[in-house]
Amino acid sequence: MSAGDSATVTLTLDEVRDLTIRCFLANGCDAANAEAVADVIHNAERDGAKSHGLFRVPGYVKSLKSGKANGHAVPVLEDLAPAVLRVAGDGGFAPLAQQLGREPLIERARSQGVAALAITNVHHFQALWYEVEPLAEAGLCAFAFTAAFPYVVHPGGRTPIYGTNPMSFGWPRPGKPPMVFDQASSALARGEIMIAARDGHDVPPGTGIDRDGNETTDPKAILDGGAQLPFGGYKGASIALMVELLAGALIGDKFSFEAFESDPKDGGPPNGGEFMLAIDPGRLGDTNGWAAHAELLFERILAEAGTRLPAGRRHANRAKTATEGAAIPAALHAEIVGLCG
Amino acid sequence: MSAGDSATVTLTLDEVRDLTIRCFLANGCDAANAEAVADVIHNAERDGAKSHGLFRVPGYVKSLKSGKANGHAVPVLEDLAPAVLRVAGDGGFAPLAQQLGREPLIERARSQGVAALAITNVHHFQALWYEVEPLAEAGLCAFAFTAAFPYVVHPGGRTPIYGTNPMSFGWPRPGKPPMVFDQASSALARGEIMIAARDGHDVPPGTGIDRDGNETTDPKAILDGGAQLPFGGYKGASIALMVELLAGALIGDKFSFEAFESDPKDGGPPNGGEFMLAIDPGRLGDTNGWAAHAELLFERILAEAGTRLPAGRRHANRAKTATEGAAIPAALHAEIVGLCG
Repeated sequence: MSAGDSATVTLTLDEVRDLTIRCFLANGCDAANAEAVADVIHNAERDGAKSHGLFRVPGYVKSLKSGKANGHAVPVLEDLAPAVLRVAGDGGFAPLAQQLGREPLIERARSQGVAALAITNVHHFQALWYEVEPLAEAGLCAFAFTAAFPYVVHPGGRTPIYGTNPMSFGWPRPGKPPMVFDQASSALARGEIMIAARDGHDVPPGTGIDRDGNETTDPKAILDGGAQLPFGGYKGASIALMVELLAGALIGDKFSFEAFESDPKDGGPPNGGEFMLAIDPGRLGDTNGWAAHAELLFERILAEAGTRLPAGRRHANRAKTATEGAAIPAALHAEIVGLCG
Repeated sequence: MSAGDSATVTLTLDEVRDLTIRCFLANGCDAANAEAVADVIHNAERDGAKSHGLFRVPGYVKSLKSGKANGHAVPVLEDLAPAVLRVAGDGGFAPLAQQLGREPLIERARSQGVAALAITNVHHFQALWYEVEPLAEAGLCAFAFTAAFPYVVHPGGRTPIYGTNPMSFGWPRPGKPPMVFDQASSALARGEIMIAARDGHDVPPGTGIDRDGNETTDPKAILDGGAQLPFGGYKGASIALMVELLAGALIGDKFSFEAFESDPKDGGPPNGGEFMLAIDPGRLGDTNGWAAHAELLFERILAEAGTRLPAGRRHANRAKTATEGAAIPAALHAEIVGLCG
């Protein structure tokens, strides 16, 4: 750890991991659960994905203190069909359940061509790229979907029904970091609206509506009885609806509104499920050519000035934090150290 | 057939089918190919989905006359992996290949839990709901993806790379028509821009850019050296990119830009592939409850005035056209009758 300017503290990535593990062990997690969550936090800080880094630790701790999340969860892998696996999450945080399902999903996708993994009864802060990337690094094309709490309206409605419902997609690029996108189906991330409200800034048109159903750029009006809008109008709402069905009804877990209604409102992540799909491009017919073929598309995209591929920014940050470490707001650092006490 | 007002002709749905078959037989299709395409045209007119109805017949005929499309195509079903099937389309129109793959995909999804179908070397006008709906009616959750010609830019770019790249998703509702959405990843359908240009109307902001890369609401500037924009900014572009990879590199078929570069510019549909996924909700763990659970979400959405589910309008039109028939522009009807000569 080294002192940054007055407002930040710089940690090495090992220090990020160690601090997280220490904090979770001090708040009722066993080592397996603490280490699994610390891996997400570590990778998020490594990639500059701050909204899923140490920023989330206090929220996780709240859900341990309330008893909502099980810090001693023992996830169980189940075989539901030749191409379907499930990990029953035992009420823990998502990462340990994801780790348990990862290798079996990879093996099943390779043997069957395509395979699905349902993860149920976990608490999820929604860094889906974290889960899709290892599958793509293993040479698979992969999807992940998860619901949240109800923040987003259906077109024509005023009542929040959908979560910010991210979907993530990964494409393997042998010899390079995979192409991965991970995007909410809301127009803006909820955290950005909260920051705008705190700082007194407007949000872009199309972000949300007030309690009377009128579009507004006032973040406080969106948060105070209003609602968020899906990205791209009804088309983004269709994606949000699809995510609810995949991560809810399909796998027998909670919709966003059900997660909220059963939540103790402890400030921690919702209880719910996640749906993943993995496909082996080597089993889809273009046995040898698929990877080089995809590069033709990426080259065409990147040939134009001003373009970049999804995940490019995260991969660039990764090179930087490996040597420079991660800058953490001093107040957040002090809060987490305090939670270790 | 009955006379409508001066500008339209009303056909019964049987007359729609018969006219289409007659036209395709007169232009070099065998009966199997003609009947398969006529089934799409029939269903589109039945559902009021005019942009995929008789409107498309002259375009199909152009691709037969140019020799691009094979009117005597004999698609072949192949078994690539336990959960992966392929239909090699033999250069024909997509519907016959889709029909060949449909029942095997349904059986494979039921036996494996999830299954994929690659359809290659077909010519596709992109009514994906037509293909997803029968899977959902068979009790499966289903996806379809297909590319097109390059019309849409990547964020930051000026050169069209992506097709309008639709994706479709279907959810089974036992005892009711399924929930199906089918949406382009462009902000606006290309046909709507062409109609606005013809009629001298502006298009909404966010639809496209002119040849200098500036956003414009002038449809002619978009069509004349400009490009379309994805829906919802970079998030819609991510969907477009995903569709290119699934319908292109994954299954060993053409990207949108490749389809364009090899096209004879005959005005017919592009040559390319399609990727489909089908999932049996009965194999995902919530064996009995999934259908009723999903209805709780639909009820919550429809409880608000002014909301509707995707496909609701098509299903409402269906009830109407069964008794009233389909109104066709008289000029289009005359053109198709002329093509039968």
